[in-house]
Amino acid sequence: MQILSVHISIIPIRMEKDVNIHDDLTALILSSIKEQKQKLHDNDILVITHKIISKAEGRLVSLNNIRPSRRAYSIAAKHGKDPRIVELILRESRRIVKIERGVIIVETKHGFVCANAGIDQSNINGNFVALLPSNPDSSAARIRNKIKRRTGRRIAVIITDTFGRPFREGQVNVAIGLSGLKPLTDYRGLRDTFGKELKVTEIAVADEIASAAELAMGKLDLTPVAIIRGLSYKNTKGSSRELIRKRRNDLFR
Amino acid sequence: MQILSVHISIIPIRMEKDVNIHDDLTALILSSIKEQKQKLHDNDILVITHKIISKAEGRLVSLNNIRPSRRAYSIAAKHGKDPRIVELILRESRRIVKIERGVIIVETKHGFVCANAGIDQSNINGNFVALLPSNPDSSAARIRNKIKRRTGRRIAVIITDTFGRPFREGQVNVAIGLSGLKPLTDYRGLRDTFGKELKVTEIAVADEIASAAELAMGKLDLTPVAIIRGLSYKNTKGSSRELIRKRRNDLFR
Repeated sequence: MQILSVHISIIPIRMEKDVNIHDDLTALILSSIKEQKQKLHDNDILVITHKIISKAEGRLVSLNNIRPSRRAYSIAAKHGKDPRIVELILRESRRIVKIERGVIIVETKHGFVCANAGIDQSNINGNFVALLPSNPDSSAARIRNKIKRRTGRRIAVIITDTFGRPFREGQVNVAIGLSGLKPLTDYRGLRDTFGKELKVTEIAVADEIASAAELAMGKLDLTPVAIIRGLSYKNTKGSSRELIRKRRNDLFR
Repeated sequence: MQILSVHISIIPIRMEKDVNIHDDLTALILSSIKEQKQKLHDNDILVITHKIISKAEGRLVSLNNIRPSRRAYSIAAKHGKDPRIVELILRESRRIVKIERGVIIVETKHGFVCANAGIDQSNINGNFVALLPSNPDSSAARIRNKIKRRTGRRIAVIITDTFGRPFREGQVNVAIGLSGLKPLTDYRGLRDTFGKELKVTEIAVADEIASAAELAMGKLDLTPVAIIRGLSYKNTKGSSRELIRKRRNDLFR
């Protein structure tokens, strides 16, 4: 599959209202799009920050209700962390990849390698923290299907989080859940303009879309959604699992 | 600095002509922009694949002229590589980070951690390979200044390459050289809508811009340039060195 060269737009969607548990998130997103005099088109890609998914799906946890295990207390003491947060990180993880200088890098139950199992206290009211959605691919599929039913539009959905990475400073937005597109564009075996095989084998297009969307989202205001328009892609099945390198293929685990 | 929420455009720029050594690359880019009935605006960000910079700056090397060292022969034999390519990788690198399963991850002389020191055989005629530009920040600054002189437009320039990364499948486009913007957006100490400090400290906005541009570029056709328009940023000094995590701060080196 080749991504064709066309003019692409990134359209930020503000949401005036904070999202709460059991809210119909799809309805909130559609009304926000409408309020901003925008409309979804076929083949748009709707990019959504995971935080509002976590909120709508009740993945907020009050730290007051967390009883840390002995292991959590021990890690917390050693690395200067809140034992309740460490407890949640351990519960959300398959294994610890590295703990150093107060940074806890884990492999989450989904398989993502990230700091603190993606647990986040910002942009949440009170003493709560947000866990990552349990199954971000399902969340994406649900929203995609609802949008199809309610608007007739066939779109793709990407759910994002902001991850740090080895070797490079700063965090970037990546895809942690998706529906309706392949996250990797496969160039293997294709030939360039000179007939040579390409060095690049697979582009993580879903991560690049997540990063593009972040440019329009900002971090301080309520802009948790963006529409990517004009990108040519095949509207087909896909899963964020394809973006996760298997442990045995990873040179750095 | 906050990135404001505005509609952002990614405009691909095709170049009909292959780039050769000593070509005036800025002139070629400006004429390609014109041919496509586009124009540069103040505050546009011009994103350029490093390959055409390498070509214009004479960073193509014929493999026929490379005499591998004993060390290059030894690594090549052990890992099933072309000893001439290994020789070039060693010459372009400060140190080897990891060699496994035929993948040579190095720290380049610039400080980038990437496979094969960024050396690439695709989209090049004949028996040549392209090395990364010697100083991509200077290359970016030169193009930026020429554009200012020739068009009066004050833009930023980002030079990109496509890097793999640990933990995640697929490659993404990142910034390896830049001029006219800060590559990191600093959120440290800022507070969210609930008055809490943000988890995210720094966003690698230059890498996100590089990734966004890639979406419009493709890999098979001659679209090595894209214009990013509508992104609010401070037109100021910056260097791709800010994106390189220092060895001593890196948990995975």
